[in-house]
Amino acid sequence: MSATLIDGEVIAVRMRAEIAAQVQQFTEQHHYAPGLGVVLVGDDPASQMYVRMKRKNCKEVGIESYAHYLPADATQAQVEEAVLSLNQDTKVHGILVQLPLPKHLNEEAVLNLISLEKDADGIHPLNMGLLAMRGREPLFTPATPTGCLVLLKEMNVPIAGANAVVVGRSNIVGMPVALMLTRENATVTICHSKTRDLPSYLREADIVIAAIGLPEFIKGDWLKPGAVVIDVGTNKIDDATAEKGYRYVGDVELESAQAVVKAITKVPGGVGPLTRTMLLANTMKAAYRLTAKA
Amino acid sequence: MSATLIDGEVIAVRMRAEIAAQVQQFTEQHHYAPGLGVVLVGDDPASQMYVRMKRKNCKEVGIESYAHYLPADATQAQVEEAVLSLNQDTKVHGILVQLPLPKHLNEEAVLNLISLEKDADGIHPLNMGLLAMRGREPLFTPATPTGCLVLLKEMNVPIAGANAVVVGRSNIVGMPVALMLTRENATVTICHSKTRDLPSYLREADIVIAAIGLPEFIKGDWLKPGAVVIDVGTNKIDDATAEKGYRYVGDVELESAQAVVKAITKVPGGVGPLTRTMLLANTMKAAYRLTAKA
Repeated sequence: MSATLIDGEVIAVRMRAEIAAQVQQFTEQHHYAPGLGVVLVGDDPASQMYVRMKRKNCKEVGIESYAHYLPADATQAQVEEAVLSLNQDTKVHGILVQLPLPKHLNEEAVLNLISLEKDADGIHPLNMGLLAMRGREPLFTPATPTGCLVLLKEMNVPIAGANAVVVGRSNIVGMPVALMLTRENATVTICHSKTRDLPSYLREADIVIAAIGLPEFIKGDWLKPGAVVIDVGTNKIDDATAEKGYRYVGDVELESAQAVVKAITKVPGGVGPLTRTMLLANTMKAAYRLTAKA
Repeated sequence: MSATLIDGEVIAVRMRAEIAAQVQQFTEQHHYAPGLGVVLVGDDPASQMYVRMKRKNCKEVGIESYAHYLPADATQAQVEEAVLSLNQDTKVHGILVQLPLPKHLNEEAVLNLISLEKDADGIHPLNMGLLAMRGREPLFTPATPTGCLVLLKEMNVPIAGANAVVVGRSNIVGMPVALMLTRENATVTICHSKTRDLPSYLREADIVIAAIGLPEFIKGDWLKPGAVVIDVGTNKIDDATAEKGYRYVGDVELESAQAVVKAITKVPGGVGPLTRTMLLANTMKAAYRLTAKA
C-alpha cells in the first residue's frame, strides 16, 4: 500500500483562479486593485525567496504589491515607519512583515503596529485570542494553518471527532492550527520538544500536523495506519546527488510514512502553495472589509 | 489506597493573607485602597452568591469593592455605561462582570468594553491571544485556570512533560487552562463533547482538568492510577438526605476516582476558593500597574 501524495499546488492554482476573478471584479468596481504591503528587512535568502514568490502570486491574481525593502541594519524606527506608512495607505489592504526579522529588532513591537484590519497574516494577538475563543471570530486566520485546514477538507478528511496531533507549538503554525482544529471539533493534542514519548501520541492520531522544523524526524512506524499527515516542515538538507547539492525534506520521513498512512503532503509543494494563496485570500478579505467601511 | 483530597481553602487562606499584606502596604502608600468594580445584572441566585463571596473576600483582604447591581431587564446601554464608568474611575483597578449576563444582552460587546488594564478576570481576547503565544505575556491570566495551576504547583505535581487532559473547552476554563499547561511544557489534549472515547484519553493522563459541568460524569475506572485530578465542576444535584435537599458534586465521581488517583480536589472547596483568590491577586496586580503608570 502506498499513500496518496497530496499536491497543494493543484489546489492552490484552482483557488488562485477564484481569487483572480474576485480581484478583477473588485478592481473594476473601485478603479484600483486590492493591495498587499510587504516589509522585508535584510538579505536572508530564504526570506527573499518567500517574498519573491508571494509577490509573484500577487501579480498573477492582479493584487498590487507595495514593497518596503530595508537593509539588514535598519533601525527599529525605520521598520516601524514602514509599517505605519502601509497602515495609512488606503491602497494597501493587507500587510505582510516577512519573519524572522533580524535579531536586533523588536519583532513583537513591529507586529503590534500592524493595523488589525490589515493583519493579512492573521498573527495579531487579538486575532489569536479570538481564534481560541468559542463564539468569537478572528478577522483573519493565519495563512499556514488555514492552508492545512483547506488540504484536509479538500481530501474529505473527517475532522470532527478525529484524534488530531499537532507537533510543534509555534505562534504561526502549531498553536493556531491546534486552535482551528479544536474549533472544527477535533480532539487535539499539542506535542512539542518537551513531550515524552511522541510516538505514543502519534500512533493514535487520525490527523497529524507536523510543524517542528526537524528534517525527517517523524518515522513511518510512529504513525497510525490510515492516518492523514500534513507536513509543514521545509528543511534543507545536503544531497550530493541533487543538482544544487541540497534538497528540501519535511518533518516526516516520507518513504517510511507512505507505507503506513492514507495520505501525506508533498514537500515542497504541499502546504507551501496554500500558505501563499491564503495570504492572497486574506488580502482580498481585507480589501472587501475596508472598502465596505469606507 | 485512597487519594489525597486537595483542600483549596487552606491554600487560599494563606494566599489571601499574603495579598492582605500587599493591600495594607498599597493603602498606606496611596492613602486609598485597591478597588474592584463589580457588575451584576439580574437575580440569578448562583451569580448573586458568587458576587457576595467575592465581595466578602475583597473586604477580608482590604480591597474596596464598588458594585453596580442592575435589574434583570437592564438595557445594553445601561450595562455598558456601568462598565465605562468603572473604566474611568481611578479608584477602581480591576473590573468583574459576573457571567452569564441575561440572554437579551450582548455579552461580547460588554466584555470588549472592559479596559485591558482592568481586566482582572483575564478574559479579554487580547489576553487570551497573548496567553496562546510563545514569548508573549498576558496582562492577566484568568482566575479559575490560574487557580488550577496553583493547586498543581502546591501539590508538587510535575507539569513539564506530563500528559495533561483538559475536559471542556470553555473560554473561561478549558481553553485557557490548556494554554497555561502548554506554556508549562505539559503535553495537552483538549477533550470536549465531540470527543470520541473520552476514557481512552483519560487513561493516559497524568493530570486531568475536568471542566464540563456534568455531575459525576467521569468515572474512576476511566482514570490512570496515580493521576492528579482538578475538578472544576460544581454541579447542584438533588439529595433528599442533605439538609437543604441538594448538594454540590464535581464533574468526576469522587468515590470511584479516589480509589484510583493520587490526588483529587474537593468539591466544593477545591478550585473555587482559589478562583476567588486569583481575582484578588489580579486586582492587586492591576493596582500596582495602574498606579506605577500614573
